[in-house]
Amino acid sequence: MKNTEKAEKKALKVLMDAADRLAGDCVRIRRDLHEYPETGWTEFRTTCRIAGYLETAGLKAALGRDIIAEDHVMGRPGEEILTEQRLRALAQGADPALLRRVEEAGGYTGAAFEIEGGRPGPTVAFRFDMDALPVEETEDRDHVPNQMDFRSKNPGCMHACGHDGHTAIGMVLARILQENRKLLKGKVKVIFQPAEEGVKGALAMVESGIADDVDVMLGMHIYPTEKEGPALAGTQTGLLATTKWSATFTGKPAHAGGAPQEGHNAILAAVAAISAMNGFLQDGRGASRLNVGTISGGTARNVIPASCTFQAETRGAETAVETRLFDRAKACVRAAAEMYECSWDMEIEGKSPAGGGEEELAGKIAAAAEQMVPEIRWSQKVQVNTGTADDFCFFLDRVRSHGGTGSYMALLGNLPDGLHSSRYDFDESLLSAGVKTCIAALTQTGTL
Amino acid sequence: MKNTEKAEKKALKVLMDAADRLAGDCVRIRRDLHEYPETGWTEFRTTCRIAGYLETAGLKAALGRDIIAEDHVMGRPGEEILTEQRLRALAQGADPALLRRVEEAGGYTGAAFEIEGGRPGPTVAFRFDMDALPVEETEDRDHVPNQMDFRSKNPGCMHACGHDGHTAIGMVLARILQENRKLLKGKVKVIFQPAEEGVKGALAMVESGIADDVDVMLGMHIYPTEKEGPALAGTQTGLLATTKWSATFTGKPAHAGGAPQEGHNAILAAVAAISAMNGFLQDGRGASRLNVGTISGGTARNVIPASCTFQAETRGAETAVETRLFDRAKACVRAAAEMYECSWDMEIEGKSPAGGGEEELAGKIAAAAEQMVPEIRWSQKVQVNTGTADDFCFFLDRVRSHGGTGSYMALLGNLPDGLHSSRYDFDESLLSAGVKTCIAALTQTGTL
Amino acid sequence: MKNTEKAEKKALKVLMDAADRLAGDCVRIRRDLHEYPETGWTEFRTTCRIAGYLETAGLKAALGRDIIAEDHVMGRPGEEILTEQRLRALAQGADPALLRRVEEAGGYTGAAFEIEGGRPGPTVAFRFDMDALPVEETEDRDHVPNQMDFRSKNPGCMHACGHDGHTAIGMVLARILQENRKLLKGKVKVIFQPAEEGVKGALAMVESGIADDVDVMLGMHIYPTEKEGPALAGTQTGLLATTKWSATFTGKPAHAGGAPQEGHNAILAAVAAISAMNGFLQDGRGASRLNVGTISGGTARNVIPASCTFQAETRGAETAVETRLFDRAKACVRAAAEMYECSWDMEIEGKSPAGGGEEELAGKIAAAAEQMVPEIRWSQKVQVNTGTADDFCFFLDRVRSHGGTGSYMALLGNLPDGLHSSRYDFDESLLSAGVKTCIAALTQTGTL
Amino acid sequence: MKNTEKAEKKALKVLMDAADRLAGDCVRIRRDLHEYPETGWTEFRTTCRIAGYLETAGLKAALGRDIIAEDHVMGRPGEEILTEQRLRALAQGADPALLRRVEEAGGYTGAAFEIEGGRPGPTVAFRFDMDALPVEETEDRDHVPNQMDFRSKNPGCMHACGHDGHTAIGMVLARILQENRKLLKGKVKVIFQPAEEGVKGALAMVESGIADDVDVMLGMHIYPTEKEGPALAGTQTGLLATTKWSATFTGKPAHAGGAPQEGHNAILAAVAAISAMNGFLQDGRGASRLNVGTISGGTARNVIPASCTFQAETRGAETAVETRLFDRAKACVRAAAEMYECSWDMEIEGKSPAGGGEEELAGKIAAAAEQMVPEIRWSQKVQVNTGTADDFCFFLDRVRSHGGTGSYMALLGNLPDGLHSSRYDFDESLLSAGVKTCIAALTQTGTL
Repeated sequence: MKNTEKAEKKALKVLMDAADRLAGDCVRIRRDLHEYPETGWTEFRTTCRIAGYLETAGLKAALGRDIIAEDHVMGRPGEEILTEQRLRALAQGADPALLRRVEEAGGYTGAAFEIEGGRPGPTVAFRFDMDALPVEETEDRDHVPNQMDFRSKNPGCMHACGHDGHTAIGMVLARILQENRKLLKGKVKVIFQPAEEGVKGALAMVESGIADDVDVMLGMHIYPTEKEGPALAGTQTGLLATTKWSATFTGKPAHAGGAPQEGHNAILAAVAAISAMNGFLQDGRGASRLNVGTISGGTARNVIPASCTFQAETRGAETAVETRLFDRAKACVRAAAEMYECSWDMEIEGKSPAGGGEEELAGKIAAAAEQMVPEIRWSQKVQVNTGTADDFCFFLDRVRSHGGTGSYMALLGNLPDGLHSSRYDFDESLLSAGVKTCIAALTQTGTL
Repeated sequence: MKNTEKAEKKALKVLMDAADRLAGDCVRIRRDLHEYPETGWTEFRTTCRIAGYLETAGLKAALGRDIIAEDHVMGRPGEEILTEQRLRALAQGADPALLRRVEEAGGYTGAAFEIEGGRPGPTVAFRFDMDALPVEETEDRDHVPNQMDFRSKNPGCMHACGHDGHTAIGMVLARILQENRKLLKGKVKVIFQPAEEGVKGALAMVESGIADDVDVMLGMHIYPTEKEGPALAGTQTGLLATTKWSATFTGKPAHAGGAPQEGHNAILAAVAAISAMNGFLQDGRGASRLNVGTISGGTARNVIPASCTFQAETRGAETAVETRLFDRAKACVRAAAEMYECSWDMEIEGKSPAGGGEEELAGKIAAAAEQMVPEIRWSQKVQVNTGTADDFCFFLDRVRSHGGTGSYMALLGNLPDGLHSSRYDFDESLLSAGVKTCIAALTQTGTL
Repeated sequence: MKNTEKAEKKALKVLMDAADRLAGDCVRIRRDLHEYPETGWTEFRTTCRIAGYLETAGLKAALGRDIIAEDHVMGRPGEEILTEQRLRALAQGADPALLRRVEEAGGYTGAAFEIEGGRPGPTVAFRFDMDALPVEETEDRDHVPNQMDFRSKNPGCMHACGHDGHTAIGMVLARILQENRKLLKGKVKVIFQPAEEGVKGALAMVESGIADDVDVMLGMHIYPTEKEGPALAGTQTGLLATTKWSATFTGKPAHAGGAPQEGHNAILAAVAAISAMNGFLQDGRGASRLNVGTISGGTARNVIPASCTFQAETRGAETAVETRLFDRAKACVRAAAEMYECSWDMEIEGKSPAGGGEEELAGKIAAAAEQMVPEIRWSQKVQVNTGTADDFCFFLDRVRSHGGTGSYMALLGNLPDGLHSSRYDFDESLLSAGVKTCIAALTQTGTL
Repeated sequence: MKNTEKAEKKALKVLMDAADRLAGDCVRIRRDLHEYPETGWTEFRTTCRIAGYLETAGLKAALGRDIIAEDHVMGRPGEEILTEQRLRALAQGADPALLRRVEEAGGYTGAAFEIEGGRPGPTVAFRFDMDALPVEETEDRDHVPNQMDFRSKNPGCMHACGHDGHTAIGMVLARILQENRKLLKGKVKVIFQPAEEGVKGALAMVESGIADDVDVMLGMHIYPTEKEGPALAGTQTGLLATTKWSATFTGKPAHAGGAPQEGHNAILAAVAAISAMNGFLQDGRGASRLNVGTISGGTARNVIPASCTFQAETRGAETAVETRLFDRAKACVRAAAEMYECSWDMEIEGKSPAGGGEEELAGKIAAAAEQMVPEIRWSQKVQVNTGTADDFCFFLDRVRSHGGTGSYMALLGNLPDGLHSSRYDFDESLLSAGVKTCIAALTQTGTL
C-alpha cells in the first residue's frame, strides 16, 4: 500500500514535470491554431496538425468514418464550401498525406487517440473541441494576438471561444500520456471533436461507438471568472439541452393587387408559427428558451411571398423541457403551414441533451487540482452555468447509460472579454494549468 | 289579343281593388304580429296566425316536415327553449288545434300555400320571412308602436327588421289570390319561411323540394331609402354569401404557476386561429368579410384555460369568395387546435349563398309597379346592397338550377331608423303598396 | 445563566402543556370555520369569531382601518356583495356587536392582537390567513368533513387551502400567549389577514404600519409532503412574485358586413395583446409565468366587438422578473389598444413580491421544532416551492427594510388531496402541532 | 361651320399621314429603348434619347428640377447606384452634352415639351412613362426581341411593362405635333415621367406645377385583351390608390440563452405588427389590399434579433380606403415597436391616389378612335381594371382640382404574356395605332 502510494506520487511527478517542460508547446500550438481557425466540419488543417503532432509521438490517429457515424452528422456545409476549405488548409500548411487519409475516411474532420496503460484499469476519455467561429477578429492593437502577431489569417473566422486552447491542451496531454504510458492503469482516449459550435458534432462521434467502452468521461472548457484565476470548477449542472433548427415555408406567389386569393403566403405562415411558439415557454420543470434569430422571406413588395425561412434554437434546463418545446415548435410550424397552404421543412442543424458531470467526481477533481496544480489558485466543486449548451452532454449520457460517470471541468480565468466576442482572449498560462489539471483528474479515476 | 288584354286589365283591376279593400287587414295583422314577436324557429303563434287566416280563406296550410327538410335545419334552439316558446304562444292566443298540427309535423315553424289558377300557366312562388330579433324595443314615446299601443309584449324580442310587415303582405296577398284564383294562370305558391335572421331557415325549406317546380321565384324586403318613398327597386346584385359559425377549443387545465407545461391552452389556440384567419381577407373576385363577434373562455386566472368558444361569420360578394374564406378559417381553427393540443369543433348555425334576382326581370317588375301601383312614387331597376345577406338566395339558386328565374324586390320607404335598431319602424302605407307591387309583378310572370 | 435556562425550560413547558390542553379548541374552532367559509374581504363571521374568542381571553382586537390602509385594498367585491355577506354572517351566528365594530372601522375584515410580555425583548409577529375559496366542497362520503358533519354550509365556497386550520392555530396560540404573557420577553403580535387568496390583503395591512415595529416576522402554511408527516420545513426560497390583473379594451361597434371600417375591434386588440405578451417569458434571472385565465368579449356575431376583457396573472421567481413581465404585458395592452383605436384599462386585483424567510432562522426553528415538538417527525431547513405565491412576502419585505428578519414555516402533512381541490382536507393533529411549533419558534426569537 | 369642319378634317388627315410616315420611327425607337432599359430614376440614356430626338425636331426639353420637385421624390436609389447608371448610359450612347444638362438640373430623369398651337385653345397634356423593371429578359428563341436581336443588354433589367412602347409613341407624337403645330389650337404638353414602377415619380412632377395649367390630362398604357386587338378602352375607373412603404424595427441584441430579458426583439416586433395589420382589411367602401412582400431580420440563431425590416404595400379602391389602411398599418408598426421596446422607421417609397379618367371623355375618345384610326378594330368606353395602380392619378387629381378633366387610354393588344413577365412583348403595330389614337383624342379636346 505504502509502495503503491509512493509509486503513484512518483508517477504523478513525472507527468507534471513533463507538463512543465512542454508548456512552450502548448503556447506554440495554440497560436498556430489561432492563426488558422476553421469552423465546424472544416477543421482540415487543425485535424492534420493534431494527427501529425501525435503520430510523431507514436500514437495512431483514428480519423473520419472510424470516429464519425455519417448518419448522425448535423449542420455540415455543402461540398463546394468543403472543397474550398480543403484547398485553403493545404495552402496553409496541412500535411497532404494526412489530409488524404481524412478524405479517404469520408472527409470528416476530428481525430481520436488511444493510450494503453501499463497495467489493467479503467477506460477514461477526454474530449476536446477544435472548431472556430464565424467572427471577424478585432484589429485593436491591445488585443494580444495582434500584438504577438498571431491574429487570424482567415477572414471572418476566429477562435473566439477558446477551442484553440482546448485543442492545445489535449495535444500536449496526449503526448505526455503516450510518452509515460507505462505509468498508467487502463486506457486513456483523447478525442478531438469537430463542430462543437452549434452543437453539431458530438452526436455523430458518440454514435460511432467511441464512448461505448468508456468508464469515466472528462471534458474541459475555458470560462471567465470574476475572481482572480486560474481556478477550476466542476460544472455539475446547468448545461442546457438544445436544438438548433431552421424552418422553411414554401407557398405560391400571386399578384398582391390583382389576385391575392391565389397566393399561399409564406411570410404569414412564418408569422403565425412564430407567434404561436411563444405560447410554450413556461415549464415548471426548469428554464426553457426559444429564439428565432434570423428571418428572411419574399421577393418583391407586390408579390404574395412564396418563401420564408427562419433560423431558431430551443433550449431547456432538462432534456425533457427542451424536447417538449421543440416538439411544440415543430407542431406550430406544421400547423402554420396548413393554415396558409404552404409546404414546410425543418432542418436540425445541431443538438445536445442537457446535463453536466457527477457532483461527487467534480468535487474530487477540484480538490485534487487545488492540491496538485500550483497554478490553480482556488477551486469550487460546482458551477451552475445558465444559458449555455455543450454537446459534450452526448458523451456523458452515453457513458452513464452503461454505468459510467463523468465530469466537465471549467478552467476559470479572468478573461478580458466574453465568449464569442471579437476581442476574446485568455491568459496563456491557463494552457499548462489545463494540462496539469487533466493529469490531476486522472488520480481520481484510477488511472494514476 | 285585344280581348285578352282587356281581360287582363280587368283582372288586374279586380285584384288591385281587393288590395285596397284589405288595406286595413294588412295593418291589423302587422300590429298583431309586432305585438307578439317570435325569434327564429319559435314562430309558433305567427305560424298559427298565418294558417288560421288563410285556411279561413279556403287555403290549406302545408306545415312542418312537409316544407322543412329536418337534416338541413340550422341554428334551432334546444328543446327547453322550444317548449317554453310553445307555451308562450298558447298563452298569447295561438290556436291549439293548429299548434297541434305543427307539433305533429315535427314542430318546425313556417307554412306554405298553393293557389291553383283557372288556366294553365307558370308556377310562381313568393317567399316572405316571419321571424323577429333578440332586440328590446325602445320605450321612447315618439316610437309609433308605443303611441299606438302595439309595442312588443315579449321582453328582449322585437320585429326590428320588418318581417311583421312582410308576413302581413304575404297573408293578404295569398288571400286575394285565393279569392280570385279563377283569374290566374298557372299556380302561385306563397311561402312563409322561418328563421331568416342568421340565415338559418331557407336551406331546410329548399331541400324539402318546395321550389323544385317553381318557374319564377319572388321575394320582398322593406328597406330604407334616402329619397322620399314608397318606391321599388329590384335588388339585382349584392346579397352576400355568408356562413354563421362557432368554433370551440377544448384543451386541458393545469396550474398556471406550478405546471403550466401540462396544460393545453384553449385561449391561446383561439388567439392563434383568430390571428391567422385575418390573413385571408383579400380576394380579387370581390369583397369578403370575417368577424369574430364574441369570445368566451377559461375559468380562473390561475388555471391554464381548457375551453374557449367564439362566434363568427364569414361573408363574400360571391359564393366562391365566402367558401374560400370559410374553408381557410376552418383550416386555421383546425391547425390552431393542433398547435395547442386541443380538440376543436365548428358548428354551422346559418348559411346563405350570394346572389340576387335577374336584372331583366327586376327592370320589368319595377316598370310595372311604377305604372300600376299609384303609391309607388318612383322605381329603379337595380339596387346594389353591400354588406347584407338573405337566405332567399337558396331559393333563387334552386330555381335557377332548373332554368327558372327570379327577383328580389326591395320596397323602399324612408324609415326613421335603421334595420335591427330598437327604434325600427316603417310607414304602414308600405304594406298595401307591397301587396299591390306583388300583384303588379304577376303581370310580368305570365300569371296575370 | 443556569437559572435563566431553567426558567426558560419551565416557561416552555408551561406553554406546551397549555397547547396540549387546548388541542380540542383547535379542532372545534377549525370545524366551525370550515362549516362557514368566507372568501376574501367577506370574512365577517370569521373576524367576529376570532375577536370574540380572544377578547374573552382578555385581548383587545384591532379592527378595520386600524390595521387596513384603505388606499391599498385590492380586489374587494362591490357593496352589494359585501352587504349580502354581512347579512349571511349575522344569520350564521356572527356577534352583532362585534360586526358593528367592524363596520364602524370601515367594514374591512381581519383582526390583530398584541400580547405584551413581562420583560423587555423583541417584537415578534405571527401572520395567519383566514379566507376561503370559491370552490364547491365535494359530496363524497369518505371526505372527513362530510363524515364528521362539518361540510361547508355556504354553497360554492370552501376552505380548500387550510386557512381554517391556520386561523385556529393562530387563535389558540394567541390565547396561550396571552394567558402566559408574564413568561414572555418583548411583544408578540398575532395578525389575522383577510384575502390572501389572489394576494389581495397583505399590502393594505402592511401599509397600515402594522409591521413597522416588528423584529421577527413569522408565517405558517399547511402543505402536503410525500413522506409521512407531521413535519416542518422552513420555506427559505421559492415564493413567486405575482400580480393578479385584468385588462379591458373598449372599442366601437359597427355592422360587420356593411361598415366594418367604422368599428374599433376590441377582440382583435385583446388577441394582439395576448399574442405579444408571450414574447416576454424568457428571463435569465429566474422563472416567469403569465397566464390569461379567462376572456370574454363582444355581443353578437355580426357586430364588430366593442368590448373585451381578460383576467391574467404574472409571476416571477424574483420580484424584478415579475415586474419586468408585468410592465411588458402592460405595454402590450396599451400598444394593442393603440393598434385598434380602443381605450384600455388595467385593474390590479392582487399583488405580492417574491421571497421567503431567512435560511438561518428557518434552520434554527426547524431544529427547535424537531427537538421540542414530539408530533414533528422530521424537519428540513429549506423547502423550495415552485409555482406558488403568498403575500406574506409583503410583511417580510417590510420587516427586512428596517433590519428585521423572518421565516415562513411550512407545516407538512401528507394531505389526501392537493391545495384548492374540492376534496382538500388535512389531519387535524397538525393543528396542535402547529401551535407548538409556533411556541418552539419563539425560543429562537428571544421571546422565550 | 362647314369650312371649319373641312379644315379640321384636313388637319386631321395631315397628322394621320405623318403618323403613317413615321411608323418606322416608332419601331426603331422602341427597339432601341428596349435594348437599353433603365429602372426608375436611372433613365439617363432614355432621357437623352428623348431630348435629342425632339430637340432635333425643334422642341426645347425641360429637364430636371424644372419638372421635378425635389422634396417629393420617392424611392430614388443612392448616389452610388446613380453614378454607376450614368456611366453605363454614357457607355451605351447617351449624348454627353444632354446628360450634362440633366446633371446640372439636379440629375433627375424625365423630360417635358411644349407645343404651341397656331390658334388659341385649351392646354392638353399627354403623360408617358419611361422606366423598365428589374426583370431578367427570357432567352427563349421564340421571344421576338431575341429573334430580332434587340434583347435587353442590361442584365437583370427589362422593359416588361411596355414603357418602351409608350415612350416611342410619345416621342413620335410630339414630333408630329411640333411639325404641324400651326394646325393646333391651344397648347399641347408631352410629358415623359420617370419611375412609374413603384409609383415613385408622378408626385414630384405634379408638385413641380407642370399640370397646373392643364385643361385635359391624357395618359396611355398598353394592356392585354382577350379579344383580337388592337383596340381602345377608356379606363374610367379602377386604378387603386397605393402606398409602397418599408418598416424597420431596431431593438437590442442579447444572448438568447443567458440573458434573453435584456434583448429587445425586433423580429417579434415585426411579427406583432404584421399580425395586427391584417385586422384592417375590411372596408365597406371598396377593396383594400395589404401585402408584406419581403422580410429580413436578425444576425444569428443565438442572438435576440436587434433588427428587422419588411417591405409592404397598401392599396385601396378609393383613396380614403388606402389612407385608412396605411394609417392603421403605421399605427400597428408604432405600437408593435412600443411592445418590444424597439425604435421604428417607416419609409414611403411610392404613392398614388386612386382614380381614373372621366367616363364621358373616355367614351368620346373611344368613339373617335374607332372611327378615325383604321387599326383600332373595336373600342369600349370603360374598362374596370382591378388590382393595379398608376401614379398618373396624381396628374388627374391635380387637373381636376382646378376644374379640368382627363382620361386614361388603354391600348389593347392580345399580348402573348402578362405584364411584368420575362416574356412580355407586344405587336409593334400597336405603336403607330397609339400615335394615331392620341391624335384622334385631340379631336375631342378642342385641339384639332
